[in-house]
Amino acid sequence: MSPSLRATLDFLLHDWLRVDVLTQRERHAEHSRETFDAVLDTCERIAREKFAPFNRLVDTEEPRAVLGEDGALKVILPQATHEAHRAYAQSGMLSAAQDHEMGGMQLPYTLESAANAFFAMASVSMGTGLLTVGNANLLMAHGTQRQREVFARNAFLGRWSGTMCLSEPQAGSSLSDIATRALADGPDFESDPLGPRYRLKGNKMWISAGEHELSENIVHLVLAKIADAQGQTVPGVKGISLFIVPKRMVDAQGQLTGDRNDVVLAGLNHKCGWRGTTNTLLNFGEGQFKPGGQAGAVGYLVGQPGEGLACMFHMMNEARIGIGMAATMLGYAGYVASVDYARPGGGKDPRQAQIPIIEHADVKRMLLAQKSYAEGALALLLYCARLVDEQRTGSAQSAREAHDLLELLTPIAKSWPSEWCLEANSLAIQVHGGYGYTRDFAVEQYWRDNRLNMIHEGTHGIQALDLLGRKVRMNQGQGFAALLARMRETAQRARAHAQWVDCAQALETALADWSSATQAAWEGDDAQASLANAVPYLQAAGHVVLAWIWLDVALTVTAMPASAAAQGRISCAQYFFRYELPKIQAWLSVVRHRDTTCMDMPLDGF
Amino acid sequence: MSPSLRATLDFLLHDWLRVDVLTQRERHAEHSRETFDAVLDTCERIAREKFAPFNRLVDTEEPRAVLGEDGALKVILPQATHEAHRAYAQSGMLSAAQDHEMGGMQLPYTLESAANAFFAMASVSMGTGLLTVGNANLLMAHGTQRQREVFARNAFLGRWSGTMCLSEPQAGSSLSDIATRALADGPDFESDPLGPRYRLKGNKMWISAGEHELSENIVHLVLAKIADAQGQTVPGVKGISLFIVPKRMVDAQGQLTGDRNDVVLAGLNHKCGWRGTTNTLLNFGEGQFKPGGQAGAVGYLVGQPGEGLACMFHMMNEARIGIGMAATMLGYAGYVASVDYARPGGGKDPRQAQIPIIEHADVKRMLLAQKSYAEGALALLLYCARLVDEQRTGSAQSAREAHDLLELLTPIAKSWPSEWCLEANSLAIQVHGGYGYTRDFAVEQYWRDNRLNMIHEGTHGIQALDLLGRKVRMNQGQGFAALLARMRETAQRARAHAQWVDCAQALETALADWSSATQAAWEGDDAQASLANAVPYLQAAGHVVLAWIWLDVALTVTAMPASAAAQGRISCAQYFFRYELPKIQAWLSVVRHRDTTCMDMPLDGF
Repeated sequence: MSPSLRATLDFLLHDWLRVDVLTQRERHAEHSRETFDAVLDTCERIAREKFAPFNRLVDTEEPRAVLGEDGALKVILPQATHEAHRAYAQSGMLSAAQDHEMGGMQLPYTLESAANAFFAMASVSMGTGLLTVGNANLLMAHGTQRQREVFARNAFLGRWSGTMCLSEPQAGSSLSDIATRALADGPDFESDPLGPRYRLKGNKMWISAGEHELSENIVHLVLAKIADAQGQTVPGVKGISLFIVPKRMVDAQGQLTGDRNDVVLAGLNHKCGWRGTTNTLLNFGEGQFKPGGQAGAVGYLVGQPGEGLACMFHMMNEARIGIGMAATMLGYAGYVASVDYARPGGGKDPRQAQIPIIEHADVKRMLLAQKSYAEGALALLLYCARLVDEQRTGSAQSAREAHDLLELLTPIAKSWPSEWCLEANSLAIQVHGGYGYTRDFAVEQYWRDNRLNMIHEGTHGIQALDLLGRKVRMNQGQGFAALLARMRETAQRARAHAQWVDCAQALETALADWSSATQAAWEGDDAQASLANAVPYLQAAGHVVLAWIWLDVALTVTAMPASAAAQGRISCAQYFFRYELPKIQAWLSVVRHRDTTCMDMPLDGF
Repeated sequence: MSPSLRATLDFLLHDWLRVDVLTQRERHAEHSRETFDAVLDTCERIAREKFAPFNRLVDTEEPRAVLGEDGALKVILPQATHEAHRAYAQSGMLSAAQDHEMGGMQLPYTLESAANAFFAMASVSMGTGLLTVGNANLLMAHGTQRQREVFARNAFLGRWSGTMCLSEPQAGSSLSDIATRALADGPDFESDPLGPRYRLKGNKMWISAGEHELSENIVHLVLAKIADAQGQTVPGVKGISLFIVPKRMVDAQGQLTGDRNDVVLAGLNHKCGWRGTTNTLLNFGEGQFKPGGQAGAVGYLVGQPGEGLACMFHMMNEARIGIGMAATMLGYAGYVASVDYARPGGGKDPRQAQIPIIEHADVKRMLLAQKSYAEGALALLLYCARLVDEQRTGSAQSAREAHDLLELLTPIAKSWPSEWCLEANSLAIQVHGGYGYTRDFAVEQYWRDNRLNMIHEGTHGIQALDLLGRKVRMNQGQGFAALLARMRETAQRARAHAQWVDCAQALETALADWSSATQAAWEGDDAQASLANAVPYLQAAGHVVLAWIWLDVALTVTAMPASAAAQGRISCAQYFFRYELPKIQAWLSVVRHRDTTCMDMPLDGF
């Protein structure tokens, strides 16, 4: 039998996370196990019918740019992508978490995440509404009433889609270097109903879904620096503001005016994988269109000048958890594919070898590793989603703790799946042998698709600096202390079970090691040396967190009736403690010693 | 300045391995530093002119099969591939290591390997003559005088190319399951001057370079089982024999007869990478051609019936070292590309960020890791090549020891680079950020190309069983003891240098750990449990061997004048001991405990 994502989600949501608690909260009072199930049923079906069958197609029929009737480049995508997007929008998932008055169903975020997992597994790059929803949520949090009504509402309705435009060709991770400029658009610039109006000029690179014909309009959220009358800008990230730049101009009621804004596709990036979505270079304000008779991309300020990055982080945190989920579901897809291949009768040839390859210990090892990476990551992501819900609907104190935990877990939830579910995909290829290296099987595409996830929405290195440089030290380490307390609580409970005593002990040791390494990293006063091994630190932190997640899952399983699925999860937890957790020592050792071997390498030694 | 492969080779060959010693041996007496340099110069030039510029071309213009005039499928390859192959054949490299009387230049194998590294780096999948030379070398060792004259000589001349045909669609790693059969070809089958003549029938899968028009003829070396008059074959690997099956029939003087043999291309595999070479499914004996008026692929027995696998291992060991070198050079290519990208002015955009990314500690870490993987692997491969020379031209005792060491090191030399130079390629992508994920830069192709190397010529799992199941235990562990002694000798020398005392100590501890884990793995009498963690064992063994290699290299460097290159190698050695070697504990721990978590996983738990 194939591994079942639905069964896994049901276990994690109901048995482990007890999401039924959420239905007792006012915001979700109309929900029940039945409504949750209905959402999952619908998404599973749409993913199976409209996404999965076309995943290879979108890999081979890459987006291409052609000249449109208006003289600008436009993008051709396969018909299947249009149909998938339509089906997704019609499902109501774009607004699922929103208030009833915004047309939403007030679905908990945990359920929204779980439901979206089906699409990420079926075809990660065809995409759903991750960026669109993140974009609209940002406007719900930081936009004016009118901006919410016009831009967010149309996004939730599926009429318009959204992007986030941060990077530039010369500024990838280094946002302080961005050069896109905004100038006040005339003396009345502050009286536009859509927000203070500016003209933007600059180039934005790596913009996912930056151009396509899937929706009537595209709402770009763009970071730029406001220049004063002398053309000067504030240096560094403090000078960065956030703007809404629609592809097509709209009026204050959200109707298209018929004018095209001065933002155009300059080129498509041709990627190693993840080819179902365009990735674009966009030119803003180069004069190809002249909205209001004048060159310059019209942008409406969101929030206060100079606070663009803070606003954008609202979207980026959501996007980072989304990327973690994408990486996770690619890992899960590869796991399912390789179990299917390895089990009796699963091979390509009917004369499949006498011994099904799944009987080999090393094949089992590769499958169990994949399961522990992908299911463990899924558990972590849903745990984070549950924290989002706690932040939104929990008591004040509980919400505050959830916020602190989320801040800390976000870099891990983004980076760990992107590293280890990529490894899972590599193991999925290996289980298939030569077949796995051919494009006749799905796993090589999963592996190529997944390689993106360590790069976009903040590279591994950026996540690592965020964790070691900021998050574990925030508020005198209060969030870190809260996380450690939760993890110790799990270890404590595990001590009551003879079966899990060793793991409880191992987790407590690991927590002490993580904690002391964190402290050791920050001894001395050389911040550069403290952060030189931020990535090994991130890797160790991720493995500790996953060990905790697996032990916590195992305790839930242990309290349930025995079953094959239960045994599978128990084996995963054991695998993780025996094969994976011991890896942290190598990573923590360089952190602890503030090892500068790499930092000290002279450039001409390479 | 870019890292220089040539400078690295010069250091490893002359300063570290002291290959000048070989010129004092009779076989290589005509050689000198000058002739060695000339070979390297020529190969570097041909690789630069005829291979490197077309590496992306062969990725995008994949081989395609079209119907030929004779009604069989033939393969179209880019013109550049034809020209590259011609230039390589004309260089004399195909026969470089052969006797003068075979038209060779009696070049040491170490130099042959080093020279071929340039081609693997320039375009691994365009290929050179790895399989052709391996095929011909096998015939030199196991063929009759006539088989050598006809088949090997024409291969060395570049007129014909060669393949090895082991796997079948239903039998990948499990050779005992092969179903291709051979029947004696008429009553006079034993009197053919080319060898006992059989008719073969069966399908062979994953055959690299199995069909193309690069050479006048293709000499397939095919494993098949000889059936008796009742159609019975000997079960298991003992029944396997080896046959020469030429694509076009030849006479006893090596002239084409004009007849096509009954072996045809059935299909091409469409791969994730490594697209410059065909990978084929071949049908033998299905009657599309009727050589001598009769269906059945004509094959000439090599060696004795039932000894096919032993003969083929001759070729496979060579091929495995070749694969290790291919993986290594892909790693090296990615390393060079990412240093070039990261250094000042190396980025894509002329407005490259204020701080060159190479100044970031984490970028340096990723570059140093790549250097330690790729240069370390290159050192190991050349060390193995030097052992091949010792086996061929050393004293009897020295040759015997070299043979034992090679047996032990071969699975590591094949698997370690294929795992860690793949990781290096992933880091090379990461250094490039988003650019690295596009097909505008070379690194994503290196990564895709390299993924093959853990699969072909014996998967990781097969190498692991070979190491833990056979090689460390062979001859009561004599080879293993010899390797440990060499490694201890290096540690002993390192103790004399204050700078290397810690590493010496760490290596000795690692040797003791490896050694005791080997013993612990084989305690008890459950061979399945002993071998359940063969892959983690292989990974640990590889890391220990590489630590030794780096320490040995570092000792050579320490004795030389200080220089930037010397500092680079010292930093690599330090990096390896501080960041990499500690990883072995996690791998050895499951070996030592004969952990059966994976083995015990019930199938329905997945």
